[in-house]
Amino acid sequence: MASERDAIAEVTAANERFYRAFESLDIEQMTGVWVQDDTAQVIHPGWTLKSGWGEVRDSWAVIFRNTSYMEFSLTGVEVLVSGPWARVTCVENLRSVSGGQEGMGLVQATNLYTLQGDRWLMVHHHGSPIFTG
Amino acid sequence: MASERDAIAEVTAANERFYRAFESLDIEQMTGVWVQDDTAQVIHPGWTLKSGWGEVRDSWAVIFRNTSYMEFSLTGVEVLVSGPWARVTCVENLRSVSGGQEGMGLVQATNLYTLQGDRWLMVHHHGSPIFTG
Repeated sequence: MASERDAIAEVTAANERFYRAFESLDIEQMTGVWVQDDTAQVIHPGWTLKSGWGEVRDSWAVIFRNTSYMEFSLTGVEVLVSGPWARVTCVENLRSVSGGQEGMGLVQATNLYTLQGDRWLMVHHHGSPIFTG
Repeated sequence: MASERDAIAEVTAANERFYRAFESLDIEQMTGVWVQDDTAQVIHPGWTLKSGWGEVRDSWAVIFRNTSYMEFSLTGVEVLVSGPWARVTCVENLRSVSGGQEGMGLVQATNLYTLQGDRWLMVHHHGSPIFTG
């Protein structure tokens, strides 16, 4: 069993892998960071819930198809680990190009990870638009 | 140890208690459904993260002070229990009165609960506006 400090470092690294996969706009790389079963859930900003890996994967495919560039920097990262569950909250400071239009945005995210073997895999991503501090 | 079926019923009941506390607009009733330590987090629709019970409590106090009526009906409730952790996702179909204005809204919520003794207490609430299906 890793110490709590190690577990926090591992979860932080898993969270970084998720955002690098998001920037890659590559469905195979994104697939590699997720739990691929019916517990997987995603809520993209403004969307309703997509539940189960099939729906989650399809949602990423749609986003990646409609995006030509995506860059994240994270602020306010907070990590909580409890046994094989972990919660990461962070603000996504994002720059994207979609349909030839450059956009900037702030998204508040809740990310959940679960330990499977020795890998922390994403089981939940909820991103919501920030309108106010 | 409760069976998985019992645990799902218990968490579903905890989730109902949270929404009844929200409707009560009473800070004491809301306090009773939460973990009151630095792991508590809330993200209200359009807001950034409030972290730790002090900030979470203050956010409810602001909302309750500015709201004169709130009514929820929930759809699409999904419950996942894993040991002492539980995730509930649901759509909040809400009717509210705030500053004399009646409003209707759809909010997608992620709610996390943790088992403390024999009580499931809320440790995380993330609500985000729904713009599209």
